[in-house]
Amino acid sequence: MSERFFLSMPPRDARAVLVGDEARHLARVMRCAVGDEVVVFDGRGTSWRARVASIGRDEVGLDLGEAMTASRPTRVPLTLAVALPKGERQKWLVEKLTELGVDRLVPLATVRGVAEATPAAVERLSRGVIEACKQCGRDALMQIGGPKSVAEIVHDAGSGVMLVVADRDGLPLEMVVEEGRSVVAIVGPEGGFTVEELATVEAAGGRRVSLGPHVLRIETAAVALAARLA
Amino acid sequence: MSERFFLSMPPRDARAVLVGDEARHLARVMRCAVGDEVVVFDGRGTSWRARVASIGRDEVGLDLGEAMTASRPTRVPLTLAVALPKGERQKWLVEKLTELGVDRLVPLATVRGVAEATPAAVERLSRGVIEACKQCGRDALMQIGGPKSVAEIVHDAGSGVMLVVADRDGLPLEMVVEEGRSVVAIVGPEGGFTVEELATVEAAGGRRVSLGPHVLRIETAAVALAARLA
Repeated sequence: MSERFFLSMPPRDARAVLVGDEARHLARVMRCAVGDEVVVFDGRGTSWRARVASIGRDEVGLDLGEAMTASRPTRVPLTLAVALPKGERQKWLVEKLTELGVDRLVPLATVRGVAEATPAAVERLSRGVIEACKQCGRDALMQIGGPKSVAEIVHDAGSGVMLVVADRDGLPLEMVVEEGRSVVAIVGPEGGFTVEELATVEAAGGRRVSLGPHVLRIETAAVALAARLA
Repeated sequence: MSERFFLSMPPRDARAVLVGDEARHLARVMRCAVGDEVVVFDGRGTSWRARVASIGRDEVGLDLGEAMTASRPTRVPLTLAVALPKGERQKWLVEKLTELGVDRLVPLATVRGVAEATPAAVERLSRGVIEACKQCGRDALMQIGGPKSVAEIVHDAGSGVMLVVADRDGLPLEMVVEEGRSVVAIVGPEGGFTVEELATVEAAGGRRVSLGPHVLRIETAAVALAARLA
């Protein structure tokens, strides 16, 4: 796959402008010249072959070719609500969920969580999504929501959605998930949910699902859910 | 889960000895006392509650309680043959495959591979398996084989085994894998297999399987296969 660049501003009339890090990377690191070909994507599902038209100090102008809209089979949306792990594990989580095609990641604020989804953390995760999309050929960004509590996740999910919670004592995932329903999959902190948090999910019809006999780390459970549901 | 320790020497007559790092960790870091209770596992599928009987300079003697043999449902064995990624990604791969219950990981020696499975590397991976087993409550170690070429993997798999290769242009995994057959799943290097390597697999009946529309990193493909097949 040729080098891909993210368009943070929507194109107009078959022209687009790369700005910020993306422009600097193309102009200074890749040392592009006018006329060079690259691939750009808008994070909303479309990519284009593009030709460098101008190289400015902090922006690169592009003439776009025909749009390539991914023709993947329609499937139901998958949201993962995850009590974020710390440090590198957080970065891994975002990279892998993006590669595997999760639609939306919501940091879950829990009583026993170890990492807070501050605005700076969410911004860092969003940059991780863009990097992964560039690398894996994904044109639509994985959305990162603001942090939500278990009660908020359950409330927002609404009634048509299947709610599942990773839990070693749950039923096997394939026994619970119904084809064709959109899923919100919840992964709690390593210290576990409180009785109240779990009761909130179960009161809303959420089902506990097992991903095997071992105690999975947060990011392992989340990636396993993504591999099996996305 | 209470702290778990790995017995590298098989127990005898309800007694066991922890040695090396495991003994030092229990004696010096955890500062155990005679009479303390811990959990030990032998890496072959059995764990025990144990009581510290003696604390020596580099070993800890234990009296074992009743053996706890994991009563997980019998399932067919899963081997992953993977062209190892570099550095941290290799470590992550081993941790996740262990958590997810892969039986055996074989480093795959390929023309375009980027990391060699030297004896030192295999030793490091094996330590990673033990660490992950301690953490995730797995009593039987994931086996790490010596490095093998594609031809050797295919030869060793034999005829009863289902061979699958991760490939974005393959059929969806669920269309290919048959219930009840043991699987050897192959993940090639990021530069791809050579025509000859792929021909070797296909000549042996190996099937290409897709794990979604994106270009997956080695460790992502391997973990996705583990989540879906283990």
